[in-house]
This record gives sequence, structure tokens and C-alpha cells, in this order.
Amino acid sequence: MNEILTQLKNRKSVRIFEDRAIDCEIKEKILHAAFEAPTAGGMMLYSILDITDQTLKEKLALTCDNQPFIAKAPLVLVFLADYQRWYDAYCYAECNPRQPGEGDILLACADALIAAQNTAVAAESLGVGSCYIGDIIENYEIVRELLELPDYVLPAAMLVYGYPTESQKNRKKPARFDEQFLVFENKYRRLSLEEHEEMHRTRNEKSGLSKENIYESIKANCNRKYMSEFALEMNRSAAEYLKNFRPE
Amino acid sequence: MNEILTQLKNRKSVRIFEDRAIDCEIKEKILHAAFEAPTAGGMMLYSILDITDQTLKEKLALTCDNQPFIAKAPLVLVFLADYQRWYDAYCYAECNPRQPGEGDILLACADALIAAQNTAVAAESLGVGSCYIGDIIENYEIVRELLELPDYVLPAAMLVYGYPTESQKNRKKPARFDEQFLVFENKYRRLSLEEHEEMHRTRNEKSGLSKENIYESIKANCNRKYMSEFALEMNRSAAEYLKNFRPE
Repeated sequence: MNEILTQLKNRKSVRIFEDRAIDCEIKEKILHAAFEAPTAGGMMLYSILDITDQTLKEKLALTCDNQPFIAKAPLVLVFLADYQRWYDAYCYAECNPRQPGEGDILLACADALIAAQNTAVAAESLGVGSCYIGDIIENYEIVRELLELPDYVLPAAMLVYGYPTESQKNRKKPARFDEQFLVFENKYRRLSLEEHEEMHRTRNEKSGLSKENIYESIKANCNRKYMSEFALEMNRSAAEYLKNFRPE
Repeated sequence: MNEILTQLKNRKSVRIFEDRAIDCEIKEKILHAAFEAPTAGGMMLYSILDITDQTLKEKLALTCDNQPFIAKAPLVLVFLADYQRWYDAYCYAECNPRQPGEGDILLACADALIAAQNTAVAAESLGVGSCYIGDIIENYEIVRELLELPDYVLPAAMLVYGYPTESQKNRKKPARFDEQFLVFENKYRRLSLEEHEEMHRTRNEKSGLSKENIYESIKANCNRKYMSEFALEMNRSAAEYLKNFRPE
């Protein structure tokens, strides 16, 4: 296993950071890894917001399901799927463009996330930990106002970065599901009841939770994640963003 | 610049491959880089289809805006944003789950793309080139049937992989737009007419196209990409996928 594969394997999310700034040179290296990422048609359908204002960090910590560690991160980047920039360019060039649609914004989300992941990989290589904050998609009205987002922009991801504390470095990376439940040949396949059981059982074992009742842990996940207030809010808010990409 | 940053910087898309298979061990390393990627709540909201059937590759080359090089790639992976697996698990565990919504599928798309980008980075480190095929989102009806996709699954990305030919290795990586047009502090900012001009002018210069008329090149992009048949089809098709995530 080469150095890159080893780093991808070892990389885990970091939520507690040392009280230590990320200097400009390191930040630039992280940002440049985004710019070098693959991008659809070379269009770079994303923008990055570098959140430096402490009050704004604190507001985003609140809108993102109230996670105070966000406000403590020395570096906070919001990756915006951005069709506004090209739409505006088309208007300036008098192309009489149609409005962006749902395919356009999914492609822009892809661009934004590919760029975001490059920054996570680059940060790791520099000793800087990171954590994705999916909750940035919540609270459409508030976030749009805070970040002054126009109609054809959608926050695809937020990442917080910082130097991990010792306890974070030593934290065990959460176990993954096994390949056989994730990869299929040629066609998608829904898992049987037995396979669902096996999938959770094997992961629980890897996590040292072998005695846990599978159905109880699926139910707990459902209540804690899928039926949670934040998931319902994420759905409401995402629907508001996507409405802007459904031209009449 | 460390080895990882250098590789992220040098990585460019590869569309012409040597006639050389990717052996199982290498493929497993590429896949495992996906599994190790960050994932929302540890849920791994994606599945990967390994397209090994040559006839199926040829069909996907057609549905993806007729790009024959897709069928010639030794490795073709489709990254599916997948809420079906967890929805089914919730049903088996009698959680009486709501239907997945637009926020759920955007989060699953994020998971799928983050995993996809890890495979591109891993492949690069193993001397294997890759190219994203955004067109996988097109042709909803045909692709769903070909890949047997259920309702709560959406193809977020396709990647083709293979060993680059010498000419591909020597191809110049396309220039990127400058940072000042992509990164903003705290708030989004729409670019002025002058900034749009500057953004394209500086990239054209880096690409050796300094004498190109900016407006003509924006118009050409608009016709070739944004107003193209494939972009219109992508919007139609994406809208069909997303309808499944708008519960009545």
C-alpha cells in the first residue's frame, strides 16, 4: 500500500481541534487542491466561501443543527454548487440563456463535492484534520441571507479543518460495511433481510458491538438520523433550494 | 509540496487507455479507497456498480451522450446515491419510515461523490488514469432499466479508469480559473462584467489562447455545453430522478 492509499485509509473525521491557527501557506495549499480537482467541462461549477468572521461561524454552528465545534474550527469552508457565475457570464455575453435546471445543479454539486474531497485529502497530508458538515443544506432562508446566496447557488458541503487533538488522533476510525453489500456487478440489487442482518452484524463485530440487537440498532439509527428534526429540516430546505432549478 | 499534493496537482482526466486490463488487486485497492471515504453519519449512502459486461458498457457509452471511449475503458464504475438500502432496512426493522426526500438524496449524492473522488485519487497513485462521466444522469428511463435501479437510487457519477497512453500522459492539463474568482470571504459575491472578462482572459492566456475573443468563447461554451442536447436531456432526466424524492 503506497503512502496515498495509506492516508486515504487512515483519514477519519476530526471534530476537536488544537487551539492553533492554520497559517496562510497551508490554507492556500488546501484551496489549490480544490482548484486542481476534476471539473465538468473545465467549467469549475463551484465557489468556495472562506468563513473567517467569528460571529458568522457561530451563526452557522447554530443553523447546522447546533454543533458548537464548528465555531471553534480554525478554518471553515463552504463549497457552493454554483451555476450563477456561468449564467451571469452567458447573460453578459448576450447568449439569452435558459434558466438552470435540476441536471445543471446536480452537475454543479458534483463539481463542488469533488473539489471538497480534494481539500480533505490535501489537508490530511498536511497534518490537518477535517469534518464534513452536511447540515449546511438546512435553513435555506437563514443561510441564504447570511451568505448572500443568489438563486442559482446551493451549498453542497461545508468542511471544518484544524489540527487534531491527541485524543482525536487516537480515536478509532468507525468501521465500514463490507464490500459485498456495497458493490454489485452490472446491476443494482436490493439486499435480502438476511443480507441486511449480516451487513449490520459484521460491522457491529468490527466495532466491538457484537452483542447489539441488529433491529434495535437500525431503529436507533432511524430515530436519531432519519426521523430527526434535522433530517426533516434538511428535506424542507433542500426542496426550497431545488425549486430555483425548476423553471416554469 | 508533498507527494500527495503533487499528485492532486498533476492529476488530469484520461480518455484514451492502453489495451491493458486492471488486475483484481489494483481494482480492490481503488474500491477500498471509496469505502474509507468520509460518509454522513457512517451510513455509506451509496452503492457502486462495477460494469464488467461489454454489451452494457456499450449501451452506457450510447446513453452517456454517445462517447465510445467509455466502452473501451477496462474499468467502469457507477456511483449511486443510495437511500434504498437504508429505507429497506428501516422497513425490515418495522420503523414505519417516511419516504426519502430531496435533502436525503442530496446527502446521498455527497456521499457517493466523496467516495468517487477517493477512487480517482487512489487510481492516480497506482498509475491508473480516470475520467468522470457526468452524462450518467441522462436517460432516466433507459439507465434505470439497464442498471435495475429502484426508486430511491440516483446515479451521482460514473468514472472510467485505465492506464493512460503516452499521448494522454503528455497532454497538458487544462488551465483553471484564478482563485480570486472562485473563493470569497464570508459572503458570496457575483462577479462584475470586468471580473468575468478578467477571469476568462487570464485563463485563456494560461492556455495559450490569449487572442481569443472572450465573448465569443463564452458564447461557444454556451452553445456547446449549456444549450446542447445533452444538457437539456440531463435536466429532463434529473428532474425525473428527483421526483421520486418529493413525497406527496
